[in-house]
Amino acid sequence: MRTAFYVSDGTALTAEAFGHALLSMFPTEFRHKTLPFIDTQAKAEMACKQIQRAAEDDGEPPLIFHTFVNVKLKQRITQCGGISYDFLDNFVGQVEHELGIKAKPKTHRTHGVHKDYNFRVEAINYALDNDDGKKLNQLDQADLILVGVSRTGKTPTSLYLAMQYGIKVANYPITEDDDFERLSLPYELKMQRHKLFGLTLDSQRLHEIRSQRREGSQYASMQQCRFELSEVEKLYRKEAIPFINSTRFSVEEIAAKILAQTNLQRRRY
Amino acid sequence: MRTAFYVSDGTALTAEAFGHALLSMFPTEFRHKTLPFIDTQAKAEMACKQIQRAAEDDGEPPLIFHTFVNVKLKQRITQCGGISYDFLDNFVGQVEHELGIKAKPKTHRTHGVHKDYNFRVEAINYALDNDDGKKLNQLDQADLILVGVSRTGKTPTSLYLAMQYGIKVANYPITEDDDFERLSLPYELKMQRHKLFGLTLDSQRLHEIRSQRREGSQYASMQQCRFELSEVEKLYRKEAIPFINSTRFSVEEIAAKILAQTNLQRRRY
Repeated sequence: MRTAFYVSDGTALTAEAFGHALLSMFPTEFRHKTLPFIDTQAKAEMACKQIQRAAEDDGEPPLIFHTFVNVKLKQRITQCGGISYDFLDNFVGQVEHELGIKAKPKTHRTHGVHKDYNFRVEAINYALDNDDGKKLNQLDQADLILVGVSRTGKTPTSLYLAMQYGIKVANYPITEDDDFERLSLPYELKMQRHKLFGLTLDSQRLHEIRSQRREGSQYASMQQCRFELSEVEKLYRKEAIPFINSTRFSVEEIAAKILAQTNLQRRRY
Repeated sequence: MRTAFYVSDGTALTAEAFGHALLSMFPTEFRHKTLPFIDTQAKAEMACKQIQRAAEDDGEPPLIFHTFVNVKLKQRITQCGGISYDFLDNFVGQVEHELGIKAKPKTHRTHGVHKDYNFRVEAINYALDNDDGKKLNQLDQADLILVGVSRTGKTPTSLYLAMQYGIKVANYPITEDDDFERLSLPYELKMQRHKLFGLTLDSQRLHEIRSQRREGSQYASMQQCRFELSEVEKLYRKEAIPFINSTRFSVEEIAAKILAQTNLQRRRY
């Protein structure tokens, strides 16, 4: 198997994003190696040795996706016998030309601590404090309130939106006993109805997820899953709560879809 | 202020990563607009109108960073009067040449649901269940156990590692009463000492963070912060626990540094 390296004098997150996006277009499997913080000549030598060893072991040169601020270190990495892809180099000149100013690269700039950073940590703490309907007295501070039946992805989605975008997300479980009989929302949620967003799943998928947790239970049965999902979707429609079926989506996709539908501000950069 | 658009027929996460990395090299401020899921001609027309309006409002053409799978939609977006940067186009040919095969782009491929997806959700649930020393009987399942005094970033770091890389991270607070007097670790942590990683902060920063929570308290006082940090760093040294001072780092940087030092497998992608 051929090796793909992601190398940088920073976190290498940009190099990874860049390389993964490109390689995901090919039906080829790679061994992935990320080498972050290659910020001294000594570390560049070590990285170079790893690249050379991979070339020998694989019998073909590795692909190297890199984003360096330090030019000398970059040069060293491009001379180790790999095939080098430098996406910054290709575009910086074009952007300089368009803006009429010179680039001033700084290490750690992209994924560093900037003015919105504290907001992200606050948003994560908020999501944890307001997970699973734990508190109903902080909903006025929420940017968004996710609702749905048990195990439809409310918690990961809340945390992702907080972590990635600094959005304050509470989530509230719609449970059979309290809410389905009356098919109504608790008073506290009704007061914040403009912030509500529903999640739903195909019943087969919910059955699988619940079965991993409590196999053979009433809670995990197809019948119960089908009943809860059909009732909750009725509730969404009745209350005009926007919702998405997240069965085929990753947490990144669910988050992007919610943002696109709600016009919430992305606070991060 | 000039506008930068991030446009895609998928989540636009790659377009954002690409554009942000480039623009972070320039000391210019931009208004950022992300337009994800532009996957029909009608949506492309709407996006085009937004781009044209921004050009008029700003008095200069917006920058457009895009990643499209659908060629017709891409063409429409590049003809709206913005300056277009297409990083895939620039590199796909080079990679095709190197691999000797043709690219087969699929929408949603980069940030979609793939084989490691369930693992990420499991890792998030694990991090939540094992946050703040809640459980000590699941530490054998941890890939990593973060330790540190209160408010040194253990929870956001655990969640980020779970979300981004599918790594199972428990975290345990070192508190004065139990641990500092004896300067030792609980038995359960000692049994997993190869998994331990310490976080620390500058005392001034810890004082600020704790003051936001409980202003004027003994807990937030400079004296207390200084004492706890000095004791916990002694503990790390005595027990040979690797640690980092995260004062100037974002959660992305802390995570990347921990991965670089521990050689943990990144499960995602």
